[in-house]
Amino acid sequence: MLKVRKLESEVVERPDDFDVTRPTGLHTSIEPFHFINQYDSQSGLVILNQPITDINLIQVWNNTSVHVCADGGANQLYNYFEDDNERAGFIPDYIVGDMDSLEKGVADYYSSRGSKVVLQSTQYSSDFMKAMTVIQIYFHSAESRKDLQTLDIDTKNGLAELLETYSLDVTKEPTVYVYILSGIGGRFDQTVHSISQLYSFNNTCPYLQLFFVTNSDVIFLLKKGKNYIHYPSKDSFHTKKVPVCGLLPLGTPSVLLSTLGLKYDVTNWESSIGGNVSSSNGVCGTTGVIVETTGDIVMNVEVIYSER
Amino acid sequence: MLKVRKLESEVVERPDDFDVTRPTGLHTSIEPFHFINQYDSQSGLVILNQPITDINLIQVWNNTSVHVCADGGANQLYNYFEDDNERAGFIPDYIVGDMDSLEKGVADYYSSRGSKVVLQSTQYSSDFMKAMTVIQIYFHSAESRKDLQTLDIDTKNGLAELLETYSLDVTKEPTVYVYILSGIGGRFDQTVHSISQLYSFNNTCPYLQLFFVTNSDVIFLLKKGKNYIHYPSKDSFHTKKVPVCGLLPLGTPSVLLSTLGLKYDVTNWESSIGGNVSSSNGVCGTTGVIVETTGDIVMNVEVIYSER
Repeated sequence: MLKVRKLESEVVERPDDFDVTRPTGLHTSIEPFHFINQYDSQSGLVILNQPITDINLIQVWNNTSVHVCADGGANQLYNYFEDDNERAGFIPDYIVGDMDSLEKGVADYYSSRGSKVVLQSTQYSSDFMKAMTVIQIYFHSAESRKDLQTLDIDTKNGLAELLETYSLDVTKEPTVYVYILSGIGGRFDQTVHSISQLYSFNNTCPYLQLFFVTNSDVIFLLKKGKNYIHYPSKDSFHTKKVPVCGLLPLGTPSVLLSTLGLKYDVTNWESSIGGNVSSSNGVCGTTGVIVETTGDIVMNVEVIYSER
Repeated sequence: MLKVRKLESEVVERPDDFDVTRPTGLHTSIEPFHFINQYDSQSGLVILNQPITDINLIQVWNNTSVHVCADGGANQLYNYFEDDNERAGFIPDYIVGDMDSLEKGVADYYSSRGSKVVLQSTQYSSDFMKAMTVIQIYFHSAESRKDLQTLDIDTKNGLAELLETYSLDVTKEPTVYVYILSGIGGRFDQTVHSISQLYSFNNTCPYLQLFFVTNSDVIFLLKKGKNYIHYPSKDSFHTKKVPVCGLLPLGTPSVLLSTLGLKYDVTNWESSIGGNVSSSNGVCGTTGVIVETTGDIVMNVEVIYSER
């Protein structure tokens, strides 16, 4: 069921398995499925306020080093577990937000077990943005991490103000991988807010690599230029032979795309919202695919998680 | 929990109920919640292939005059009902697609009860686009509607070819309201494909007004210029005092917005993906709101349906 609208001359159909070698020259390297199989000390998990259903939360949790719930995200974490025995093994490090959704019983449960609950009442940023500020402070330095845990943070906008006190050179910070649950797929304005933040953080804090993890796929940014999206093998992240994927020109008026390793590879293919969009494409590259784009775009790849 | 990032001077907070009068002068009038309470002979329902969960399908079904399943959308319709007695009251007029998802039992069930199953194997358009072609032919004229029902349609791309045979002036066709279930909220490339089609149909066939209906909201296009989004009262479509809404600049690089009747009304407010996005805003207008925009944008409004 190909949903790529195309000119035949610009599109080549690939076999299900197709070898792609790492590109030479300038490129951006992305490993979107790293979190599925491997622990990473430079990675964090952010849980937003939408039900967590088919995601293997425990796998993502165990492979990330800090766990932040944005407001009612803590309710969702709480409700994910059926009994207290299981629940008690997954206590978030931080719960942050304006607390218009956090249930009192949930707040008490987690704060009595070591979660730091940080009220930030400002309405000039979203709970998601507040959670990202926690991530930034946590990963900046040993000192900032200690401040986050020990300081008394002003309840209006203290977190953002604390972040401002550090000398943080976004070009020198080591890469931090942030996996975000429940950012996409709920109310549509929340989905678009998430996508907007994906572009915004890429502009202002390129050391943060954001991955939205949904029930059916992983969503991330491809940067202007050549991108190499790679993985040990297709088996390592998915049960299907050709995982479905899309190249989605959301934050740019129009882009030209050239790809290698997709089911329907394109060359100098113009793509825009309202024009051509490469949806229901597939991943054929055995260990990676290459996407070259004239502007920042969003990519999604279907992922089926191992059972809970 | 306001997620509007803003300059204070450009934003005014409104009371929960705020009267807005119909604008004078040139404007586009939109009634996105019409389908909830009223039958309309100029409206169709399209069901795509994602589970139908919290939507009151029967209400939408009963208020639309033609019902089209896109491929596996028929499986979802079938599975929505728990028993055959109920199921037999909701037979789609058409099932269309490349049929890579339609289950044989489902196809047999519906075709034996009067559904016309139209195989269209072309991979140059999506099942959603094929369903929209059925809608266009159905509403064009009594003759085209009869053709659709009686002609033997070529199984490759016969529908699009049939549509081409009519002299269809898109500026003269009467408005058709199309409600689409399961277009938004599943795999993210499908969501973006749907949004791209929203813009595309608006450009090529402005007489088609598309509304995506999800579990939590209704999603539609606002056109460049002044838009008047109206309804009999806020009670008529929602149980909450201030339904959440968003103004989402997806198909345009950047727009200036001015609004009247939202919780956070803006004036000449610049909005773009990666910049400011008005999400988690609210509807205060008692019978309508006005949104003026310098480019086509997407709006969503939270809707809670009455129970099934």
